[in-house]
Amino acid sequence: MLDLLHRYWEATNYLAACQIYLQANPLLKEPLKAAHIKPRLLGHWGTSPGLNFIYVHLNRLIRQTQASMLYICGPGHGAPALLANAYLEGTYSEIYPHITQDEAGLNLFFRQFSTPGGIPSHVSAHTPGSIHEGGELGYSLAHAFGAVFDHPDLIAVCVVGDGEAETGPLAGSWKSVEFLNPRRDGAVLPILHLNGYKISGPTVMARMSDNALENLFAGHGYEVLFVEGDDPMEMHALMAGALDLAYAQITEIRQGAARHWPMIILRSPKGWTGPKEWKGKAIEGTFRAHQVPLTDVKNDPAQLALLEEWLRSYHPETLFDADGKLIASLAALPPEGEKRMSAIPYANGGKLLKDLDLPDFRRYALPVVKPGELTAETTVEAGKLLRDVFLANTNFRLFCPDETNSNRLGAVFEVTNRMTAETILPEDDHLSADGRVMEVLSEHLCQGWLEGYLLTGRHGIFPCYEAFVTIIDSMFNQHAKWLKTCRELPWRQSVASLNYLLTSHSWRQDHNGYSHQGPGFIDTVVNKKSNVIRIYLPPDANCLLSVLDHCLRSRDYVNLIVAGKQPELQWLDMDSAIQHCTHGASVWEWAGNNDDGQPDVVLACAGDVPTLETVAAAWLLRKHLPSLKVRVVNVVDLMSLSPRESHPHGMEPERFSALFTDTQPVIFAFHGYVRIIHDLVHGRPDPVRFHVRGFMEEGTTTTPFDMVVLNNMSRYHLAMEAIKRVKGIEGTAVLELFKAKLAEHDAYIREHLEDMPEISNWKWSD
Amino acid sequence: MLDLLHRYWEATNYLAACQIYLQANPLLKEPLKAAHIKPRLLGHWGTSPGLNFIYVHLNRLIRQTQASMLYICGPGHGAPALLANAYLEGTYSEIYPHITQDEAGLNLFFRQFSTPGGIPSHVSAHTPGSIHEGGELGYSLAHAFGAVFDHPDLIAVCVVGDGEAETGPLAGSWKSVEFLNPRRDGAVLPILHLNGYKISGPTVMARMSDNALENLFAGHGYEVLFVEGDDPMEMHALMAGALDLAYAQITEIRQGAARHWPMIILRSPKGWTGPKEWKGKAIEGTFRAHQVPLTDVKNDPAQLALLEEWLRSYHPETLFDADGKLIASLAALPPEGEKRMSAIPYANGGKLLKDLDLPDFRRYALPVVKPGELTAETTVEAGKLLRDVFLANTNFRLFCPDETNSNRLGAVFEVTNRMTAETILPEDDHLSADGRVMEVLSEHLCQGWLEGYLLTGRHGIFPCYEAFVTIIDSMFNQHAKWLKTCRELPWRQSVASLNYLLTSHSWRQDHNGYSHQGPGFIDTVVNKKSNVIRIYLPPDANCLLSVLDHCLRSRDYVNLIVAGKQPELQWLDMDSAIQHCTHGASVWEWAGNNDDGQPDVVLACAGDVPTLETVAAAWLLRKHLPSLKVRVVNVVDLMSLSPRESHPHGMEPERFSALFTDTQPVIFAFHGYVRIIHDLVHGRPDPVRFHVRGFMEEGTTTTPFDMVVLNNMSRYHLAMEAIKRVKGIEGTAVLELFKAKLAEHDAYIREHLEDMPEISNWKWSD
Repeated sequence: MLDLLHRYWEATNYLAACQIYLQANPLLKEPLKAAHIKPRLLGHWGTSPGLNFIYVHLNRLIRQTQASMLYICGPGHGAPALLANAYLEGTYSEIYPHITQDEAGLNLFFRQFSTPGGIPSHVSAHTPGSIHEGGELGYSLAHAFGAVFDHPDLIAVCVVGDGEAETGPLAGSWKSVEFLNPRRDGAVLPILHLNGYKISGPTVMARMSDNALENLFAGHGYEVLFVEGDDPMEMHALMAGALDLAYAQITEIRQGAARHWPMIILRSPKGWTGPKEWKGKAIEGTFRAHQVPLTDVKNDPAQLALLEEWLRSYHPETLFDADGKLIASLAALPPEGEKRMSAIPYANGGKLLKDLDLPDFRRYALPVVKPGELTAETTVEAGKLLRDVFLANTNFRLFCPDETNSNRLGAVFEVTNRMTAETILPEDDHLSADGRVMEVLSEHLCQGWLEGYLLTGRHGIFPCYEAFVTIIDSMFNQHAKWLKTCRELPWRQSVASLNYLLTSHSWRQDHNGYSHQGPGFIDTVVNKKSNVIRIYLPPDANCLLSVLDHCLRSRDYVNLIVAGKQPELQWLDMDSAIQHCTHGASVWEWAGNNDDGQPDVVLACAGDVPTLETVAAAWLLRKHLPSLKVRVVNVVDLMSLSPRESHPHGMEPERFSALFTDTQPVIFAFHGYVRIIHDLVHGRPDPVRFHVRGFMEEGTTTTPFDMVVLNNMSRYHLAMEAIKRVKGIEGTAVLELFKAKLAEHDAYIREHLEDMPEISNWKWSD
Repeated sequence: MLDLLHRYWEATNYLAACQIYLQANPLLKEPLKAAHIKPRLLGHWGTSPGLNFIYVHLNRLIRQTQASMLYICGPGHGAPALLANAYLEGTYSEIYPHITQDEAGLNLFFRQFSTPGGIPSHVSAHTPGSIHEGGELGYSLAHAFGAVFDHPDLIAVCVVGDGEAETGPLAGSWKSVEFLNPRRDGAVLPILHLNGYKISGPTVMARMSDNALENLFAGHGYEVLFVEGDDPMEMHALMAGALDLAYAQITEIRQGAARHWPMIILRSPKGWTGPKEWKGKAIEGTFRAHQVPLTDVKNDPAQLALLEEWLRSYHPETLFDADGKLIASLAALPPEGEKRMSAIPYANGGKLLKDLDLPDFRRYALPVVKPGELTAETTVEAGKLLRDVFLANTNFRLFCPDETNSNRLGAVFEVTNRMTAETILPEDDHLSADGRVMEVLSEHLCQGWLEGYLLTGRHGIFPCYEAFVTIIDSMFNQHAKWLKTCRELPWRQSVASLNYLLTSHSWRQDHNGYSHQGPGFIDTVVNKKSNVIRIYLPPDANCLLSVLDHCLRSRDYVNLIVAGKQPELQWLDMDSAIQHCTHGASVWEWAGNNDDGQPDVVLACAGDVPTLETVAAAWLLRKHLPSLKVRVVNVVDLMSLSPRESHPHGMEPERFSALFTDTQPVIFAFHGYVRIIHDLVHGRPDPVRFHVRGFMEEGTTTTPFDMVVLNNMSRYHLAMEAIKRVKGIEGTAVLELFKAKLAEHDAYIREHLEDMPEISNWKWSD
């Protein structure tokens, strides 16, 4: 049995190596020539044999146990191995029929790898069986745990490279077992693959003793099984034994009979079975095996000969028949149908996706009779909707760094709890082993778990402090790239969108101050491919409810929602809110003044705090300069400002002109950095007339109104800017009055340490 | 002695609590009234008594040993404690003379805390003795290690909160001991403070057994000393003993007599010595002690009475004399002068900063005789300069995630090595215990170490893959905020700038593909306060040398440099390069065509790949449409495009018009996302005439030229856009020709898997 398995491993290694080198002669039927070699050698050999080794052994275990296993490949550039297995299992040809199971298909399969118009060297979305791209390192383990939450039948085998094990996010992921309920969730089997080197240097963990590693992972809650060596047949026996033990232990944990989760540490040579050395310098087992181990084969006959010797060492003529088909005894080895790790539905999560059973969001409507009269905490209302989502669904989780209450979403605790697998004490608040609120003080884990959860066919939301969500900028980048690529692959089924809810936002960090003030995540999101990103700034609770409902129903997007959590004035009744959100942006006629189709000035706003200041500015102007024709435009869907050719939500030119005119000055108060608006209106009629105010990196611990003053976005600043921009208006006296008001604010706040009552109690309906 | 120390601790706790509550009656000379309470109660009590406890015990150790100690406060909102100590030591009044050592000063000291115009609740730059703001959690330990590299006399005591211990970056920081040389560097003493709870939930580590913690940290290389309990006097004895042991062990390690570094785990109640309970619900020792433990003291007389009881439990009348001065027996306890942790020069690193001894960068000039003829790897030349910086200086380090060679900076290994404290094997490449190249596969550690290194008065550089530097977006945000705040504090001395060198950039990820393609870090940097950020895109080696020299001499900035590492055409001789970089942007007359002061079209570019395509586009136009007047403008200093009022490097209107005209179309090829340019030209004459091409999220594993084709930024795309934008030009035939060329490219690459020779071998001088 292990002998056959070894032969299968050789077939995968042969395929991995050939993908890097060959563009012809795929079965080595003739002597290897320079012409058979690709013009540019791109790819990574070092990690591949180890990945193949693990894969073929998991195949054996799956056939033996009929377990459902998901292979998460942490190491970067591991595609040659995963592709080789997907090809040998037949999945690859099922999905990409032009890559046939014969010599011609094999040749195309090799040729497409890491070539223009081909496929990447990472385990990308193109790779069947994958939910995880190894290009940016550190997220494999978080993805693995996310995948098994609420999937009791699944075992995610997560290969962690010793390079990525050095990253912070990976180091912080081991603790995920503290959030795994063996009775409700599946299992993760981490396989730490120590092959010694990164690009050039040794890895930290590879230089640690077994004893130190055993201690470290015991501390994390794992029992380590070591598989170490370089003799293939000895290693096969060791690995098979370790996997049997690990599987038995997982079964015991599920039955409550064991306490510690198993993990495997595999120490094997980098570039195992590849060329041993070149010109006296060792390759196998060193950093020189990391990428292409022999780089000059096209020009150097001696290198070419060594390459041929290496490739023939796998005896391809005994692995494939004359037509290029894997021989029957080997083809019988891997599991069948959806048990193949390359074809498992969990790795194409849309196949398992069920719509959420969503309550009618109108049910949570705030009774707004008149704009600017009622005060409410906007996200509290969203919390009630989320509570009822939890009530009706078991395929939904909320991920948050210990801020669910702080974000005013506490209503969810009426029906679920914070999840922990640890001891619970009497003083603990809403903590249980079967909660579906995942609170961990790690934005990386929240994001990684959620990605794994979504990509395996479930739904979720990530409420986060606005300034700190930039911690996962790069993870978001990678997820957005994954979604964009999936859209180009018809066989990838749609998954639920990733929903961010930034409620503790930059303008209301009254007690947290400057370190908590930063709206830069909008900039990160706005740069991504327009077919995968959506950005919403609902100004009040009814708009938030409408937006949230829309986002929870959507697919294949990243939805960024920024909304306030502090008590704030409410503007729209539910019908108006729905209409407003459907349009993305509209004129708020009740807030403006005498607009007969050609206002003197447009006051535009996006975001709850800018909306308050804008409506107040319009109110001030109406009071003090009643002859000025002021129009107020509110933008809830930020991308609606974009030209239609840049984003599918972009407004047609006619609608843009109807809102903003073609000629009149626009004073735009924006939640984020001003440059976003400068960009979005580039190409619109006379963009220079857009005068944007936003966060200009002025912040500290202070009152809400002082924050908008510090950033020149207060109602007085906006009103003064409007007066200055309208030609021919006599506004000197009013300008002086507003300037005096700002001075009064300054004096008042230093004396009383709070906002002037006329500011903090201001209502539009006054 | 411990009794006196206990009294001192009570003084610090009293000061911490009063900062949260009082605006009058600072010594409680009269009964506490509602009027003495601040109108808004902001601040965090929970963490403060533990931080104070550690502080006063370190004071004892410093007095005993005369050691130099830096207190790094990891937990967020720990300022009440650190401020209390700085005040009692007198440092605070030395720096802020209006906060006097008497009753009036005490009152101002309380009143300013977390109030408008006052100071933040985090250990911000305002706090004497700090190099680390706890607002965003996870970086304390990395900062601590960065601070002690090359500072053999320093011990950085790093208090790690159990909340932040859950973050990925912190979890990944423990391994820093593997990069510490006890003979050359100082020591870090981590104190893991387990007080049980985050905002609402328990922390993972607080629920772990001592045994599990001991295993975990043994795995990381530490020997744990436990200090656990809630009885103050017992805890004082335990803590004093643990610190003596830890100090002795550090001394032994330095002498080579011990192997494992010590660390302390302090388990103490959250909100220790604060109110025990309110209305039957426990406060002390629970999450309810996290922020303000009694929130309604202004309205509820019973709560006010409990607050008074709490504050009087410290017996302020026995701690301060009638004038409000700390009594002499207590004032004698802390260390003196620069041994005070609040006054130690390491925490105001500019005091220790020595200029780098820099070689003349002109010495490394490439001999560019004619533009676009010589091919060279731009960063290789920078590597030679960096090599000689290492030769002449011991206060400089390079931090990089295992990519120094990959970034073509390998020349540094002629004079220094990768640093490791672990075993070195014969096959290892340039690895030693005294290297100053810090390679660890963690962008978080690179950034955190470098920040710690810079803020304690040294110099450094962080070369990074462009797409992956966004991993530390949020750390950069916090550092930029720190620098901005320091500029507003005259007592903070200037420190060396933080220099990023992004050489493996988005356009040349030929083998890595889409996951490695993303220029978003520019967007993150450009949003920060203009007085702390600089962005450079040198198009060739001589420009890079000029920019690098400038950056290494600069102070208090973040300098972002994006430059290519692949073989590429060189444009400017050294004199021209210096002139070009000094201007920030200039016309490249040799690249244009018949420009008599009013070109038909301006081709502008920023970044090495856009520059190549732009120069080639101008060449194509000259060849095929010789009558068209084309001007080429290259931008090396991105912020020079900005209006002067937005950035100090911004061009005056006259210069902008001289380069770009006021009316002619500008085709702008940009390294990053187009929106940056859209924003920078907003407000310039007729911005709509700027047609920007940049990275539009189209990428994969492909050839360099195919990448620019995929993103519509190839020489043909730029030339076609120019033809389309110039009115009255007969360009149909040329447009067709260029379209055919693009089709030819497409066919060629699918056949040959590489770029057409006429593209890959193109030289401007042809």
